[in-house]
Order: sequence, then C-alpha cells, then structure tokens
Amino acid sequence: MGVQTIGANVKRLEDPRLLRGEAAYVDDIQVPGLRHMAVLRSPHAHARVLSVDVGAARALPGVDDAFSAADLGAQPPAIPALFAMDTFHPAPQYPLATDTVRFVGEPVAVVVAESRHVAEDALELIEVEYEPLEAVVDAYAAIQPGAPVLHANAPDNVAARQVYQTGDVDAAFAAADRVIRERLDMQRYTGIPMETRGVVASRDAVTGELTVWNSTQWPHTVRTILAGMLAMPARAIRVITPDIGGGFGVKADFNSEDFLVPFAAVRTGKPVKWIEDRNEHFLSIAHSREQIHEVEIALRDDGTILGLRARHITDCGAYQRPLGVINASLSATSLGGVYRVPNYRVEAVCASTNKAPASPYRGAGAPESTFARERLLDIVARELGIDRAELRRRNLLTPEELPFDTGLASAEAAVVLDSGDFPAGLDKALEMIDYAGFPARQRAARDEGRLVGLGICVYHQITGPGPFEGGSVRVDPTGEVTVVSGAAPMGQGTATMLAQIAADELQVPYDSIKLVFGDTGRLPFGMGTYASRNAVMAGTALVLAARKVRDKAEELAAHLLEADPADLVLEDGAFSVKGVPASSVSWAQVAAAASPGGSRPAGMEPDLESVQYFENLAAPYSYGIHIAEVEVDPHTGYTTVGRYVVVNDAGTIVNPRNAEGQIVGGVAQGLGGALMEELVYGEDGQPQSTSFMDYLIPGSLDVPDVEIGHLESKSPLNPLGVKGMGEGGAIGAHSAVANAVADAIEHLGVTVTRTPLKPAAVWQLLRSAGASA
Amino acid sequence: MGVQTIGANVKRLEDPRLLRGEAAYVDDIQVPGLRHMAVLRSPHAHARVLSVDVGAARALPGVDDAFSAADLGAQPPAIPALFAMDTFHPAPQYPLATDTVRFVGEPVAVVVAESRHVAEDALELIEVEYEPLEAVVDAYAAIQPGAPVLHANAPDNVAARQVYQTGDVDAAFAAADRVIRERLDMQRYTGIPMETRGVVASRDAVTGELTVWNSTQWPHTVRTILAGMLAMPARAIRVITPDIGGGFGVKADFNSEDFLVPFAAVRTGKPVKWIEDRNEHFLSIAHSREQIHEVEIALRDDGTILGLRARHITDCGAYQRPLGVINASLSATSLGGVYRVPNYRVEAVCASTNKAPASPYRGAGAPESTFARERLLDIVARELGIDRAELRRRNLLTPEELPFDTGLASAEAAVVLDSGDFPAGLDKALEMIDYAGFPARQRAARDEGRLVGLGICVYHQITGPGPFEGGSVRVDPTGEVTVVSGAAPMGQGTATMLAQIAADELQVPYDSIKLVFGDTGRLPFGMGTYASRNAVMAGTALVLAARKVRDKAEELAAHLLEADPADLVLEDGAFSVKGVPASSVSWAQVAAAASPGGSRPAGMEPDLESVQYFENLAAPYSYGIHIAEVEVDPHTGYTTVGRYVVVNDAGTIVNPRNAEGQIVGGVAQGLGGALMEELVYGEDGQPQSTSFMDYLIPGSLDVPDVEIGHLESKSPLNPLGVKGMGEGGAIGAHSAVANAVADAIEHLGVTVTRTPLKPAAVWQLLRSAGASA
Repeated sequence: MGVQTIGANVKRLEDPRLLRGEAAYVDDIQVPGLRHMAVLRSPHAHARVLSVDVGAARALPGVDDAFSAADLGAQPPAIPALFAMDTFHPAPQYPLATDTVRFVGEPVAVVVAESRHVAEDALELIEVEYEPLEAVVDAYAAIQPGAPVLHANAPDNVAARQVYQTGDVDAAFAAADRVIRERLDMQRYTGIPMETRGVVASRDAVTGELTVWNSTQWPHTVRTILAGMLAMPARAIRVITPDIGGGFGVKADFNSEDFLVPFAAVRTGKPVKWIEDRNEHFLSIAHSREQIHEVEIALRDDGTILGLRARHITDCGAYQRPLGVINASLSATSLGGVYRVPNYRVEAVCASTNKAPASPYRGAGAPESTFARERLLDIVARELGIDRAELRRRNLLTPEELPFDTGLASAEAAVVLDSGDFPAGLDKALEMIDYAGFPARQRAARDEGRLVGLGICVYHQITGPGPFEGGSVRVDPTGEVTVVSGAAPMGQGTATMLAQIAADELQVPYDSIKLVFGDTGRLPFGMGTYASRNAVMAGTALVLAARKVRDKAEELAAHLLEADPADLVLEDGAFSVKGVPASSVSWAQVAAAASPGGSRPAGMEPDLESVQYFENLAAPYSYGIHIAEVEVDPHTGYTTVGRYVVVNDAGTIVNPRNAEGQIVGGVAQGLGGALMEELVYGEDGQPQSTSFMDYLIPGSLDVPDVEIGHLESKSPLNPLGVKGMGEGGAIGAHSAVANAVADAIEHLGVTVTRTPLKPAAVWQLLRSAGASA
Repeated sequence: MGVQTIGANVKRLEDPRLLRGEAAYVDDIQVPGLRHMAVLRSPHAHARVLSVDVGAARALPGVDDAFSAADLGAQPPAIPALFAMDTFHPAPQYPLATDTVRFVGEPVAVVVAESRHVAEDALELIEVEYEPLEAVVDAYAAIQPGAPVLHANAPDNVAARQVYQTGDVDAAFAAADRVIRERLDMQRYTGIPMETRGVVASRDAVTGELTVWNSTQWPHTVRTILAGMLAMPARAIRVITPDIGGGFGVKADFNSEDFLVPFAAVRTGKPVKWIEDRNEHFLSIAHSREQIHEVEIALRDDGTILGLRARHITDCGAYQRPLGVINASLSATSLGGVYRVPNYRVEAVCASTNKAPASPYRGAGAPESTFARERLLDIVARELGIDRAELRRRNLLTPEELPFDTGLASAEAAVVLDSGDFPAGLDKALEMIDYAGFPARQRAARDEGRLVGLGICVYHQITGPGPFEGGSVRVDPTGEVTVVSGAAPMGQGTATMLAQIAADELQVPYDSIKLVFGDTGRLPFGMGTYASRNAVMAGTALVLAARKVRDKAEELAAHLLEADPADLVLEDGAFSVKGVPASSVSWAQVAAAASPGGSRPAGMEPDLESVQYFENLAAPYSYGIHIAEVEVDPHTGYTTVGRYVVVNDAGTIVNPRNAEGQIVGGVAQGLGGALMEELVYGEDGQPQSTSFMDYLIPGSLDVPDVEIGHLESKSPLNPLGVKGMGEGGAIGAHSAVANAVADAIEHLGVTVTRTPLKPAAVWQLLRSAGASA
C-alpha cells in the first residue's frame, strides 16, 4: 500500500461546515406546513392521575390537536426495554402517563399547534386532576421495607437484580490478611449537550412513508421501536439523524417525544416538530451515574488483592427505558478494573425512585465502578501504608497475562481484556507528572498553608461492543467514492476518522470521500454511535466493505490491463502493473467497466459496491491512566485543577488530534462530575437542578491543559487494531480529580467517599476535620 | 412452486391511488420557498439572435433571476446525442439558443420568479433582437442543393446517414419478375400525454445535493446528462420520477428545461419549478414519425418477395437530442417485417429542418416502416391480383425458420427474430374478423353506396432492448418485501406486473410487495421505461434478484430447520420440509436470522437483499396482426372505424388485462395517426398545431371496441419467456386503418400513399377519383 493517512493528523472534514454555521441540526429541518408540539409535564413526583381534559386546549385558535394517554388507544404502546437482568421487573414508561405519574417532568399530554407559542399557551388550558402520592427519592430508602411502592410488579422497588461473580470470593475473604470496607456514592449527573433533543416527523400523504428527523445516536433502533409502537411497517419509516450537537449517551435513548412527534404527525396528517428546551432537558433526559457502592476488598498485607465483594444500588428513577439497567450491569463487571482480582462477587441492584429514568451517559457504569475501586485503593494504600502507585502496580495485570478472561459477562459478552500494558502506562503517567517529585511539592505547599493533592486513576472501558455495525463503500463510474455508515456521530470527528480508513484501503484522498451517516434509508441495518464503538465497529465494517470493493476492482483492473491480479499495485487512485506505471486504470475506469453493460470478466456481477457488516461480540477494552494535581482552597473548599496527565491506550489511533480532542472533552466532563455537576432532588421529589443557574458545568477556565501520552496496544479483535476511546476521559477524570481532592485533605483526618466535591461539600469536610482535629 | 399469479388478471396495484386522486405528479411536488420558471421562446423558425437583454425582466419585483445563453458560460453545455449513425454531423441543441434560433419554440431566455404569473410577465420585458433567416420546413426540400443551411457542419442538411443491407439487393432486383415502387409518407405527429412535462429542482444548501423531480421515463439518463452539463458529481444529483401521466417516449428525451430548472436552482440557490403548458408541449416536445419512404420491392410473379430497396428521409427537425436519429435507424432495420426478405438495402437519411427536434414516440420508427411495407404489400397484391392475406402468408417466415437472423443490426444489436408463429397469428386474426366473409360484406355495402374497407397489418417490434436493467429485492426482518426497479413507468401497470413476477418467485401475495421506481437514489444504475422493455428487462432483473434472495433464504431456512435445502418447499410465504408443513419458517423468520447478529450458516453474509442487473443485447421481437374494418363517408371523407381485431403475441403475458389495456391504448394512438393527428407547419416554419383546437386526438367515441386474441410464443431470451408489447398497438393500428381506408376507396382508382387520412384528405382523394372517373 502506498499513502497511509491512518495515524496522521489530517484536518477534520467536519469543521468547515460546523465553523461556517452550515451544519443542519434537527431544528434546521423545515417542512412545508410544519406544526409544533409542546408537552404538558407532571408537576408531581408521584401522583395518581384522576382526569385529563384537553378540550379547552383543542379549542384554542391555532391548535391542531391536543391529546393525552386516553387518545393512544385502549392499550397504549410502551417504550420497550432492550436490556434486562436475571431478575427483571420491567417498569416501562408510556409515552404519556396513564393512571399515575412517577417523576416531575413526565409527559401527560401534548398540544400540536401552528407555533410553539400557541402550543405552550394551550398547555395552560389542559386540566389535569392529580391525587398526590408519597414520593421516594433515595435509592437506599426506596428498597427498604415500608417505602412507597412505584410499580405493583416490584413491591420492594427493585426493578432488577443480578449477581456477577467469579472464583470463590467468600473463601478469599476468609483467608485474607486484611479486609477493608467502604460505602462510596456517586451523585446523579448526566450529559448536557449544547444541542438539546429534537424530533421532526412528516408523513407523505400519498406513499404513507413517515420520515423522522431525530437528534438520535441510534436511528435504526429508533426506527425499530417506532415501527413497533406505531404498528407500522418498518420499511415505511425512515429515521434520519441530522447533525448533532453533542449526545454523550443521553441521545441513545427512546424518550416519550421520540414517539409522540411521529404519532402526532400520523394522527394530524401534518408535519410536526418538537425541540426540547433546556428545562425539559434537565427534567426528562436520561439521568445517570447515581450509584451507592458498598464494597469490600480482601488483601494480603503486601497489598495483593485477593477478592472484591460488593453490592451497588443504582438509582434507576421511575421507569426503565431501553437501556435503563445497563449501567448497573456494566458497573458490576468493571469494578475489578485491569487488576488481578481472582475472586469477585458484585450484586447489582436497580432501584426505582420518583426521579427521571436513568440511562447511560459517557462511560455508562464505568465511571461509577472506577470511582468505587480507585477511591477504595487509595484508602487501602493509606491503611496499609503502601504507596498508592505501588499498590496499583503490584496488582495490575501484566502484558503476559493478556488476553485475560475475567470470567464475567456483561451485555451478553464475555469480559476479556484483549491487550495492553497497564504497568507501562502507569509508569509513563507517573513519569509525566513527576510523581517522584510530588511529595516534595505537596510538603512545600502545605508548608505554605496550601492544600494540594495528587490523584491517580487507572480505568478501563469496554469499547466497540457488538453485535454488529454496517457500512458500505461504493465507487461510481465517475470515480466518486461514497461511504455509508451505520454510525450516527454527534461531533466527534467520525467522518474524518472513517474517511481516513476508507482512503487508505482505496488509496484515494481522504477528503474526496463522501460520507453518509445516520439514515435508515441508506443502510438497512445499523446500531449507531455509543459505547466508543465507531472506530471499532463502523471502522471495521468499512474496512471489510472497502476490501471487498478493492478486491473486485483489482480483478477487474487485471482484466482490463490483461494482467494477473497478483501483479497489480494500487497507488494514487489507480491500478497498474508493478513496474509499468504508465499502463494504469483509474478507479473511474474500473468503475465504468463494472457498470452494467461494461467489460467485465465472465461471471463477475456488475457494480463496485459492497455492504458489509462487522459482526462481533468480543469487544476490545481500552484503558488509561489519569493523574490530576489539584489545590483546595482551605477557606472556601473550592478546588482548582492544576496539572493533568493522561496516558491513553486505545490501540491504533487513526487521528491523534481527534483522539486528543475526545480525551480533553471527556476530562472536562469527568472533572465536572467530580467537582460540580449534580441533579439534585428535594425530599418531595422536586428537581432542583433545572437550569444552568442550578447545574454548574465546567467552563473553559475550569479545565486544565491536558498533557497526553499515547500507548498503542493494538487490539487483536479487528484488522485495524483499533479500540474505542471516546468515553475514557470522562471515566478517568472523575476519579483522578476526586482522589486528588482526597489526597489534598485526607491527611486532616477525613475520608472522601462521595462526589461531587463541590466547595460546600469540601468545606464541610474541612470543617468536620477541623472539628475532629 | 405453489401459487402462480403470472398470467392472472389480478387487480392493478396502481389504481386505488390513481382513482382517489392520490397520485403525486411532478406538479404536486412542493418545496419550501419554491420559485417558478418561465421560458422565453423563439417566435422565429430560423433567425440570427443579435442580442438578448434580460435587464428589465430581472428588475421586475418578484423576479429572482433572468438569464440567457450568455449566462451559461463562455462554452455553454450542449445536450448530448446518445445515438449516432455511420455518418453523423451532430447538431446539438443548447439549453438556450446561442447565436441562432432554429425552430419556433426554441428556448432563448428564462425568468425565475416568485410565481409563474410574475415569471410570465417578466418574459415580456426581455428584449431580443432577431435577424430572420429563410426557413426550411420540408425534409425533401431541405436536402436539395441550394436549400437554406441549418448547421455549418452539414451544408446539405443531412445530419446523419447510414445504409443497412443484407444479401445482394441489386442482383435480386435484376432477376425479379416484377418491381413495384412507391413513395409513402407519414406525417409529423407525436405522443400527447395527459400530463405535460415538468421539472422541480432543489439544492440542499448544506450538503450541496441537488434533488430533481422530473416527469422523465429515464431518470438515470437524466442524471448522467445533468452531471455532465452541470459539471457536478453524479452522486450529488438525485433524480426522482414521480407519478407520470403518460409518456409515450416524448418523456424519454432531454429537453432544455431538464437542464434549465436544475441550473436555475443551483444558480439562484432556491428551489425552482417549471411545468410545461400545453402550448409549450406542442411546440417543443419531441416530434416524431415524419418520414418519406421511397421504396421498391422485387417479386416473383407468384408474389414471393425477392428484395426490398428503399431510402427514407426522416425529418429530424432542428437539432439532435439524445435519441434524435434512432427512429431512422429502427425504421431502416424493420422495413422487412416478419417476412422472408433475402435481399435488402435501406438507406436512412436524417434531414435537418426548422422544426422541433424529433425523437421516438411509441413505436419509434416501426410505425413508419410498417406503414411503408404494409401499404406497399396491399398495392402489390392489387397489382399482382393476389389476395392481400395470401400474399402476406406466402412471405411470412414460418416457425421452423426461427430464430431468424435478418443480417441487420440496429442500436448496436443484431436483429434476430427470436420466436413466434406469424402465419398462425395471421390466420387467427383473419378468422376473428371473418375475412372470408368480408368480400360479401363489402359488396353489399357498395351496393348501398357505402364505402367500406378492411385493412390488414402484420407488424413486429423490437422489445426490451439492452444493454441492461437493474432491480433489487429485499426482505426485511419483519417479512416485508421491497422491490426497487430501474423502470420508471408512466401509467402502464408496471407495478402490478413486477409485483406478480416477484410474488411468484417469493411465494408471497403480490399486493404485499412494496415497489419503488424511478429514483436514482435507490438503485445505482438503471435505464428506465421505453421501447416496451419493462417486462423483459426490469422483469428479468427482478427474477434474477428474487431468485438470489430465495436461494439464500432457502439455505438459511434449511439451517434453521436443520434440514437439507433440497428437501425444502416454499409455500404461502414460508419454507418447510417437504411433507412436514408444521415445522416451517416464514420469510420474516428467515430474514430475522439473516440480520446482522442473526443465526446463519458459517460464511453466509448478512441480509436478504440482492441487486441484480439483467444484461442483454439480444432483444426479443414481438409481433401482432391488426385488422380494421372502416367505413368512409363518400360525402365528407370522414372515416369511422367499425370492427377491430388484434392478435397479439408477446410471449408470456403476465397480466392479460393490463396487456389488453396497452393494446387498446396503442390502437387509439395508431388510429389517431392514421386519421387525425398532424403537427402542421406553415411554409414559414410557423407551427399551426399548437393546441387541441388544431391537433385532434381520438376521443372515446372514435375508438372501436377492440377484439383481442393472444398467442404466447415464449421468448428464449429470458427466463419468463416474456416480450414487450406496450408499443404494438400504435404500430399496427396506423397501417391497418390506413389500409382499410385505402381498401374502401382504391377501387375508385386512387392510391393512398400518405397519412393522416383526415376527412379533407380523403375527400380530396375521392374528388380526384371522381375527376379521373
């Protein structure tokens, strides 16, 4: 092969459009006669719905329609769960609340009108009679006897439960030198993309085809669910993901409006748009992260881990939408990290509460388990008097132990760590941050009355899970290359990354390739973009497709050149006989010959296109080491993150600049989770974080320069050796920063066991330390 | 195989939509911000264009743009010719006239405005300075020395010329007992669909993709031509054929507006619509048929044909658009019909005149040559005193002589008559009309002073020419079957016909199949609908695709049923083991297993879809016998068609009712051509048939009941044994009716040598007969 762009920092194909304001987000979709939908939402955390009267709303001039659950049919369709556990009492959400509302913000009725303004006005005319019920807002309290019950099929409010285990954990604990226990809590927070959610639906009056533009990360899944809920043929529904302004997992969900907008379009016969406002976003998108970990670790005195035994309670909110319990499962199988943990048992409990339903947010269960483990390891290190880096090094799996089958399985796939050099990564990060010099730095600071701390986090993440992704490559008789992918990216540079992959396979300029994403009309099957899967799954699908096309083209070029295919080289977009560059045939010439009626070898079918699906359940695992240095203001509890080092190993890196952008973005979100972000609910279940006034996210001044080092342990699981890495920053940063804050203050006699470490929380810790000191 | 719908009169899938007014023609396409185009046309048949000033038009409020050829660039793109002859001096039409206009109606400038009304008003403000030139409107005169020259590259106004020959024609004539010569003229007439032409184009400001809705019979060809003329990547252009209200070949062309509307959309950045009005339609669509035949036949005294020698001059009008000279070629190779003509030479001459450019209309050259031959045979019969049916029977090829290679080639393909029983067809038709009883009927009428005549026509037609057509069949995991075809039908029931074909292959109900036509975005390559090719080419492509899908499904079903594929039967949409109907798997189950991640045999690629191209240059030939009985009013010359018999042989008939509808529609058009329709030009080149006031088409009362008999001589050239037949009615009827009129009056001593046989023309003949009598 000639030119290789994989590994090069080529410019992002996406940027010119994005920078010139030419991106087309869902709110940019205009359809003639477009109507607008507004949603009436429950003001109660828990209440019986006695009646809903939309009559006055319907009568308002400019209103096309208003409807409630009663209008969805005698048996309204429910949003299906796509993921379950061994014990599972599904609590599906109906698009509109039927007899009970279970969280503030739950859709109760909608209005479709000539404008959003009229629709919002009409909402005020809808009369709903509620009978308030007692709310339960704490997951721990929810599963205690006597708590208010959310769903009749789970009187203990446990929606799902499963035990994940390997080895003989009880024996290990019995034989241990030391057992250390802790409860570690992560707060409820989630992805807050710049662009909120939005849906436009338009049904062709003649063909009956329903086109849905949805800011979704998984258009094919949305289509499948919609077809079921609308009882329409799937082929009559086309779901298109336009440009997305951030997703982070909260757009890989199926919310009420994903059904209500298409339903309203079918019901009214008019195209309908709904764009989530920021308040709605805070109220009803997938919330995430909220987990209580009760974790025990069994050790030898030298710090060797003998076993982990844990229970975690995930606050799943009021209902399970498609991925409602997957975080709990992924937390359960990732608690051991990339350490040698021979004996292991984690019980995952999914609790129902009167809060917004939970679903994955960047990292999906891994930030939670990573926090539990990495925080615990620091506590262990302190208790055993072993340096925290050394403690980790002693327990990290070595390259010789890989691939390492943990004996666990999540999302129907065995958890096997495929490749990596965890100790080398740790050492590299330690060297980058000058770990050896930190004690002196910390002492010097303390001597000045300053609280500085260093936090280490070794995280890993499942990336590119299956079961499949699809992609097609075609070369037109004009030589134009078009790539269609099942991916539905939301700003992460996927077009550039996939173009590089296809360009190298076809030996054409990466910026000559036209990419099509997120359109069920262009590829029959697709999974979408989540779980750091684009490079692994969409990338490999393209490799398979491009190689099919290239192999066929080579055979055809040999036919045209009257040569042996084995004697051909592909360079600069043309095939030629080795050593005879003058006699060459370009992609355009080959594709023209491949056209129907063209000159092809006997038996060769026409056209130069291949649709391929990469089917794979064995997901690669990437990992990284984050080290943060922070300073805590002893007077206010305010934390400033100073230096920040990341060593990232995600196998082959297609575009380092792109990858680093992902890392930095993830670090910002992890830092936000460690220090600021929290979806707070009052005891009555009223959400208290419903605007950017109440929900602080990191600004550019809060995010430090991130120093990044790469390792590239190629994955043996795909031809490019790639792994995913989009979520890693968010996983590692939460714990690294939290550990750093802990390191800054724990010498005062306190223990950090929960996040976020907002100034008030840290100040409380400092005050309790002062009180106890 | 179980149920077979091929051959059954199942109900047309198209009809419910058409009957309920739910069809979506191009004028039904609405795009936000749509602008409207109007075209300024030349009022001169031939003139130099000295200047065009669009300034005042541009300044009119509501006008977005106005432009002339000068705005198309220094080297404006020309409409390409797709078909040539041995001698070819192309006279391409530019979308807007450059320095010269050459026919009345030629586009000179356009206006794009907020409404068609404003655009039309603005046309009046465009100032064009013309210097009129002498016009030539008669093809015979055009090629004489000293005629005004249209194009510098052909000073003799011969745009193309080719000789088609086989055997030794001069020797045959030298050795003949009898040689009979005649000049036979067919008038200029053409297809007048209920829906005129129309184009809508919209360019996506963000992606740059240009979507063009065009009432075209060949969207893929329009895309290819557009890409070249606009210098845009083909993949950036999507051409969609919406419902079409009739095409008849005049929509398998590329006219100025096919370029001007997309060009205006690109130029203005706004979506643009243009709908041809009826006046524009008469002025500038493809005209057709106008041919002068100078034909000689060499015979033995017993009527055995020894040779044919002919020259025909086709009036090609002012320019050659894509198929401008194909009629002349097809006439030249079809003059011999299905008769035994061992020695043959036809010189085809394409003459340029100051009239609208010519292109195929239903039958494309065959009606012209058929008229020349069948009229001549009647003249021969009379001169030789041989019964005209007997004369034909003596010369018809017998089934034993088939396949019969004529030794000629047209449209790059050898003319080989593949199958049929011509004598049996003739005898059947003669029996149906009671030919034996006709002399008595005629005598009885004459005794009453009534002029009745019977006309026979034996025609044949090339059907389903290549080089290819494409089609795809897919089965979704829901069991839904979707068929995409390269065909772009215009009302002839193609959806029903193709659904029947796919249904039989897949053993599913034909009305459960979703069909997609005429969309370059859904199939990479396609040819379209013309030349009676849908059943042969699109049908066979579907057979190939359906069988690929069925074979794969069978293998997969065997895997699921743990059976041998050879033991399976496919019935009622499910595969089961022979004799064990209980254990069956439905299409939906098989397709679900075929999905990525499904349970498939090792090595089988996912999905149940196949795109196949039927590549074939060897076209089947269908034929038919038309016999008309007419009565001519001796006082007015008005002809009434009484009984009408058709024996049709187009191989396997998929849907007899559909086929009969095609025959009757064609008969109406052939009858119109024989008796009424004519695009008349004055000596100055001014068109005189520019509305339905001046151009008479048959009404329902003019068309007789058509009695139809079928033969089904299967074609050996495709798996279904089908041939095309859409054009046959129009080919046979023109000559059968003309011959019947001749038979009614030629005993008076006149000879019918030209059409149309309008009352005035017949009255003139009767008057000249009376004068000579």
